[in-house]
Amino acid sequence: MRENTVKIGLMGLGTVGTGVVRIVQGHQEDLQKQTGLAIEIAKVLVKNAEKERNISLDDDILTTDPADLVENPDIDVIVEVIGGINPTKQYMLQALENGKHIVTANKDLMALHGAEILSKAQEKGCDVFYEASVGGGIPILRALVEGFSSDRITKMMGIVNGTTNYIMTKMSKEGADYAEVLKEAQELGYAESDPTADVEGHDAARKMAILGTLGFHVDMNLDDVDCEGISRVSAEDIAHAKQLGYEIKLLGIAQRDGELIDVSVQPTLVARSHPLASVNGVFNAVYVHGEAVGETMFYGPGAGELPTATAVVSDLVTVVKNKKLGVNGRGSVAPYKEKHLKTDDQIVSKYFLRLIVDDKRGVLAQITRILADHDVSLEQVLQQPYNDGKQSEIILVTHQASRKNIFDVRKLFEEIDSVYEVKSLYRVEGGEE
Amino acid sequence: MRENTVKIGLMGLGTVGTGVVRIVQGHQEDLQKQTGLAIEIAKVLVKNAEKERNISLDDDILTTDPADLVENPDIDVIVEVIGGINPTKQYMLQALENGKHIVTANKDLMALHGAEILSKAQEKGCDVFYEASVGGGIPILRALVEGFSSDRITKMMGIVNGTTNYIMTKMSKEGADYAEVLKEAQELGYAESDPTADVEGHDAARKMAILGTLGFHVDMNLDDVDCEGISRVSAEDIAHAKQLGYEIKLLGIAQRDGELIDVSVQPTLVARSHPLASVNGVFNAVYVHGEAVGETMFYGPGAGELPTATAVVSDLVTVVKNKKLGVNGRGSVAPYKEKHLKTDDQIVSKYFLRLIVDDKRGVLAQITRILADHDVSLEQVLQQPYNDGKQSEIILVTHQASRKNIFDVRKLFEEIDSVYEVKSLYRVEGGEE
Repeated sequence: MRENTVKIGLMGLGTVGTGVVRIVQGHQEDLQKQTGLAIEIAKVLVKNAEKERNISLDDDILTTDPADLVENPDIDVIVEVIGGINPTKQYMLQALENGKHIVTANKDLMALHGAEILSKAQEKGCDVFYEASVGGGIPILRALVEGFSSDRITKMMGIVNGTTNYIMTKMSKEGADYAEVLKEAQELGYAESDPTADVEGHDAARKMAILGTLGFHVDMNLDDVDCEGISRVSAEDIAHAKQLGYEIKLLGIAQRDGELIDVSVQPTLVARSHPLASVNGVFNAVYVHGEAVGETMFYGPGAGELPTATAVVSDLVTVVKNKKLGVNGRGSVAPYKEKHLKTDDQIVSKYFLRLIVDDKRGVLAQITRILADHDVSLEQVLQQPYNDGKQSEIILVTHQASRKNIFDVRKLFEEIDSVYEVKSLYRVEGGEE
Repeated sequence: MRENTVKIGLMGLGTVGTGVVRIVQGHQEDLQKQTGLAIEIAKVLVKNAEKERNISLDDDILTTDPADLVENPDIDVIVEVIGGINPTKQYMLQALENGKHIVTANKDLMALHGAEILSKAQEKGCDVFYEASVGGGIPILRALVEGFSSDRITKMMGIVNGTTNYIMTKMSKEGADYAEVLKEAQELGYAESDPTADVEGHDAARKMAILGTLGFHVDMNLDDVDCEGISRVSAEDIAHAKQLGYEIKLLGIAQRDGELIDVSVQPTLVARSHPLASVNGVFNAVYVHGEAVGETMFYGPGAGELPTATAVVSDLVTVVKNKKLGVNGRGSVAPYKEKHLKTDDQIVSKYFLRLIVDDKRGVLAQITRILADHDVSLEQVLQQPYNDGKQSEIILVTHQASRKNIFDVRKLFEEIDSVYEVKSLYRVEGGEE
């Protein structure tokens, strides 16, 4: 019997883990038709084996001891959905040491220690797949690794965090304030009680590091990803952006220009005509531009029990098929390109700048002079009364400018007397060049 | 040297063939890094070996004799981009008989004779991949076969023909007539001089048969796909649809309801809020709904030299990787479900109906009575003067109704005296249920 059954050790029985059990149990016949083998959940690591759960698993399957999985000679594949770095990383390395294949949804682990995990897997002839770590149910990693294997990716833009996209969508649709919408998202369970990882862009940065590594064939570190969150985006910013024909999204952008690359996560004005602008709520999307293929986009649910579990179990199907073929651990391609990161003077973008200034003669002239001195030219300028006419509000959309220059400009604006406040500075994507 | 090089026989050096040569030549180093083997275009089948071409290939590589490829013991993989059924099918079967793997962009061949080709491949231990046959550069077949291998697909909706989408987009944006836009598309090379296969929906039907087979694991024939083209869609239809919040698209829909399936291609009103509604011009998109994953969409260029060639060469990379691993011909899963097609009384949809009627008392009452008698209830009704007030135009959007009932209703409308003409009948997707 053993040779016709693949035994799974499932780590974690939270939202995604429960989804994995449901799909493996519910789709048993289809999975067997596709892989030629039966898939059995043999052990499940939980924190509390006594807890009531609304799925059916034999009692002796649940365990609180990770060794029952990673040291268990009967287990072929570890499915890891507990998340976090410690002690998960140790479990993964131990499992690989014991020749077990891994399917994981852990973007933190893969973004921070992916190279180490994959190199251990290579050494041991094991598979490691992590489709669920980026874009939930969207099969974007397969698209990059297989679908575009013949192409050279030049740009990836991702709405890869559902929590922040829910918040930005709600702010845009209702004109509501950030704090108000965040509170509501927390009540609905769309945001954690400590929302830092989501709203400060750390979660998105991890996903962009994974996309950068796979899309550009370089060993991208999290430190290489410039990251800014949404907590300073105001209802007024969004209103102004809409007026100019843009939505504000927390957008990850990974770009390649010859050998030079740049990966960042920032609140970004996206032109309404761009397909990313209408990706709303908890949905995710990744736009991919390749030299040969041109523009493509992949859209779907970024999180949730069953969508994420679909990605996990589809990876499991690949591991099981590989096992049947005897080729586990032999399909992966390690990053083979040297990493050359762009410096701030090489990173160019259009920018949106909002200033509050004294309402007196010559201020706009002073501002445009500073911009011109830094090679920043303007596409749109809007000046209007602010604070009951005591001040003015100046909205600028620039043409392509270097990050260095725009940061120098901001610094100068913060120093001169006639500028009361630099309210916001965001990059702009998808309009006319 | 031989064991480190995979030799390709390329059939066809038109648009896509040229793109394949460009990518294989231009990305040689990347391809070798990814596959571990060099890829060499060893022979190219052309109609005229003397023709001037703006790609560099040695003269002795070009041949007009298919046997130089399919009977050539040096050739490992046939890349087929000549299209058509005859003699292509014979070449493919011969190549498989001789143990050669196949990558093809031929939707006609795969939709009509896919089962025969794949079964011969299975028998001979050969790979056959055909990603480029549906959705050009969009890796949609991989998404279905691998990305959603663990899920059960319930619905696929595709804008899978760029020519008709170009025409419908242009008609919608400019209020232009079908004949006028078709002529322009022909001049621009977006439509063939004989546009039948595109505008009558045959091309889209072939692609939907392929999607149906892979998504539902049944052996879908082209005859199973109900097909209606766009040639009767008028500028007025589009204007009315827009007024009600819809775009008209030539939409392929493959649906599964338990064991019952239905695949069709028809002009369809798509609600503006649906992501398919904003897929414009020659772009393609496939919306996929799975029981577990929910809503996803894949968007990209549906045709063109390099996008389609990307899909072809990415398939080639898979064949070469499989060859390196020694697992060619062992990964494919034949359809394993019995096919049960829905009958017209089981196929339900919302419908848009446009009638020209005599402007006299009681006509609307007569029409709504006929609808009620056939269990068709109405979501929207609009009546307005037509033909300088000599007649009336009645626009109806129904709730869910069976295809049988709506066809019976149309037949009755065509028979009664007070209805002057049934101008149009289209299904409606994506609005509220």
